[in-house]
Amino acid sequence: MSTTTSTSTPGAGAVEPFDAIDVIRAKRDGGVLEPAQIDWVVDAYTRGVVAEEQMSALAMAIFLNGMEREEISRWTAAMIASGERMSFDALSRPTADKHSTGGVGDKITLPLAPLVATFGVAVPQLSGRGLGHTGGTLDKLEAIPGWRAALSNEEMMAQLEEVGAVICAAGSGLAPADKKLYALRDVTGTVEAIPLIASSIMSKKIAEGTAALVLDVKTGAGAFMTEEADSRELARTMVDLGTDAGVATVALLTDMSAPLGRTVGNALEVRESVEVLAGGGPADVVELTVALAREMLASAGRTDVDVEAALADGRAMDTWKAMIAAQGGDPDAALPVAAHTEELRAEADGVVAGLDAMKVGVAGWRLGAGRSRPGEAVQAGAGVEIHRHIGEEVRAGDLLAVLHTDTPERFGRAREAIDGAWDLAAPGTAVPARRIVLDRIV
Amino acid sequence: MSTTTSTSTPGAGAVEPFDAIDVIRAKRDGGVLEPAQIDWVVDAYTRGVVAEEQMSALAMAIFLNGMEREEISRWTAAMIASGERMSFDALSRPTADKHSTGGVGDKITLPLAPLVATFGVAVPQLSGRGLGHTGGTLDKLEAIPGWRAALSNEEMMAQLEEVGAVICAAGSGLAPADKKLYALRDVTGTVEAIPLIASSIMSKKIAEGTAALVLDVKTGAGAFMTEEADSRELARTMVDLGTDAGVATVALLTDMSAPLGRTVGNALEVRESVEVLAGGGPADVVELTVALAREMLASAGRTDVDVEAALADGRAMDTWKAMIAAQGGDPDAALPVAAHTEELRAEADGVVAGLDAMKVGVAGWRLGAGRSRPGEAVQAGAGVEIHRHIGEEVRAGDLLAVLHTDTPERFGRAREAIDGAWDLAAPGTAVPARRIVLDRIV
Repeated sequence: MSTTTSTSTPGAGAVEPFDAIDVIRAKRDGGVLEPAQIDWVVDAYTRGVVAEEQMSALAMAIFLNGMEREEISRWTAAMIASGERMSFDALSRPTADKHSTGGVGDKITLPLAPLVATFGVAVPQLSGRGLGHTGGTLDKLEAIPGWRAALSNEEMMAQLEEVGAVICAAGSGLAPADKKLYALRDVTGTVEAIPLIASSIMSKKIAEGTAALVLDVKTGAGAFMTEEADSRELARTMVDLGTDAGVATVALLTDMSAPLGRTVGNALEVRESVEVLAGGGPADVVELTVALAREMLASAGRTDVDVEAALADGRAMDTWKAMIAAQGGDPDAALPVAAHTEELRAEADGVVAGLDAMKVGVAGWRLGAGRSRPGEAVQAGAGVEIHRHIGEEVRAGDLLAVLHTDTPERFGRAREAIDGAWDLAAPGTAVPARRIVLDRIV
Repeated sequence: MSTTTSTSTPGAGAVEPFDAIDVIRAKRDGGVLEPAQIDWVVDAYTRGVVAEEQMSALAMAIFLNGMEREEISRWTAAMIASGERMSFDALSRPTADKHSTGGVGDKITLPLAPLVATFGVAVPQLSGRGLGHTGGTLDKLEAIPGWRAALSNEEMMAQLEEVGAVICAAGSGLAPADKKLYALRDVTGTVEAIPLIASSIMSKKIAEGTAALVLDVKTGAGAFMTEEADSRELARTMVDLGTDAGVATVALLTDMSAPLGRTVGNALEVRESVEVLAGGGPADVVELTVALAREMLASAGRTDVDVEAALADGRAMDTWKAMIAAQGGDPDAALPVAAHTEELRAEADGVVAGLDAMKVGVAGWRLGAGRSRPGEAVQAGAGVEIHRHIGEEVRAGDLLAVLHTDTPERFGRAREAIDGAWDLAAPGTAVPARRIVLDRIV
């Protein structure tokens, strides 16, 4: 459509170099934003000169018309420039960072960070809290008595130098433009735009100052993006952004159609992570932990190391304990247990052909493991223990799962959520082995 | 893109039947909004439950993904339902209304309303003020000493009964949702969406309660929409909306590539309108006035009338004087004249093949005839007098136009704006006669 412009926006003192309406129109009409337009609109939005409703319209235009690689890189750089940048140059160790797009039962950061640190690579994991059906790494670790998420920059640097691994809350000074924009996208139906997701994640990761970054991009029912093509595009976009910013970046595309491991919930997942660090644990969790550890170590130049050995011989466990203790946690304390449990049993014989990650995740959320809005408390002990996973035989009456909560009135809605999560094939059906790492994108 | 939803919006008391995010997502993903969703979102936006940034995202999604006829009709009905409705059922005369999408030199309402009223049809013209390069009917009439735009409903009804024609300010009670939404669209780059333009115009026109409506949809450089295909789609959409609402609606698609008539500016256009009412005036203004009058009269069942005769014999002029006097104006008073003028002269010989309406309109605006933001004062005498129009021969040194303003420092920017407005072909070139009415859409 071709239209004419009849008015100009009253500028506050008319010193702004651009007009928000012109920027919105350019993207609305399918154009490519100029670097200076992007720098200005992100900065002016952070300053409050571009109004929320203007950024909302722009976000929807970006959602529907997309962005070129150069635009996304510039947008990311502008968000980084809105806040402080960290640097790990003073450390004696190389650094490697990891980010997961989030999934159900995704406790990988817990065993992964100490495992990688065991080989002399510093792992600064600035993490978040859960929202909705996906859990948050900080929520999980807070199940450990005494552990605290908030560290000063000095504490974090000291811990990285001494222990090698830190999992802590991201400071509010990183990419404040992203924080403001994310809150807006959350209420305006513009969360799922790949350019905006990618720049949101990468602006924080690049601002954190790591030299190397491994991305775990999930796909399937329990992932942020359920379609593999979308997940692949997100991975591609983020790898490009990291590369453009000079950060060695690689992404693994991994399966999130079913939960990772056999536990969903904060203390439950810590327990399973400790099993992995003790050389045991579910095969899928071990497989992904090892795959990501190899990528992180390789990105830091450590290709000649035996990752599995560090799990088997207790070295990774030693690093874990040191990491937890450094943040006030007692790694040997008993973990919280929910006050109430209910069992879920099979109604027929069969073999588990599928286990819906979304249904299990929502059940865990409803049991109290997750939150519906930022700031809500979560229950440390709540969640789902999975007793029959993909490929396993089931007899009618067998235990499929145990639901845990402190507030038994939650059982009803959790049962509704998890209803139909197990896809049972006829007994004896050959179910293909589950593939965890679907692709590697560089 | 297929994505999963992980959170729900906290509702204020959770009594709302819908969630704004779901409505935004539905349109974002190319869906058709349900009637109940449309009713709710327009009402909830008017109540402030749907936030400005949410409506902004929805407006952009509508801009880019469009709306079905049923959606636009329902949206229009919801905007009408947000406010009061007028009724002319108590009048002894039939009513006919007209709306123009706005153009440069478009003073047609001034001669048209009294001309149609002369034949016993009531013409309630609830009009607006100008913004940007297009003038406003109320601004033009306010050039007449004593004339006032604000009438109570009772005054308006009495004048319609006695004189037959009223041109006055629209009350704020009509379609308040539209008022709020228009202000939002204006700052978010979502003005030019056809479903939103059409529903904005038609919600007010339908709420005004006329039985018949004639639309003058402009196309070309000086129109809101410059491309004929867009203008045609807008006309089609508005005719459908009127029809769906039970209002007999017809649209004329008319040329706005060049200014209408030979004057642009408030008092200047009143003077030209009076010339038309006196049986003279520029041919294009007369042609469009007569064409629209015939449509309005036909829609009110008056097909056996001689419209031109009422201009030639002074009957329309009598109605004009009565209409102006009824609103406090002195139809015989001298009109304001700008304090300063400058001449614009041809630099070469030729024949005028084109005259850019946008350039002339912006020049008039810059001279003081229009405003840059709502509430600004306009100059009654400012504007452009055109001395050479399309098809006319020009010799180097001939007067092309006279610029009028009370504030001579404006001449410079006005000259910049009008530079190149005259497209001169070689002397003797045959220029096709200008067509004013391009199509009739029912």
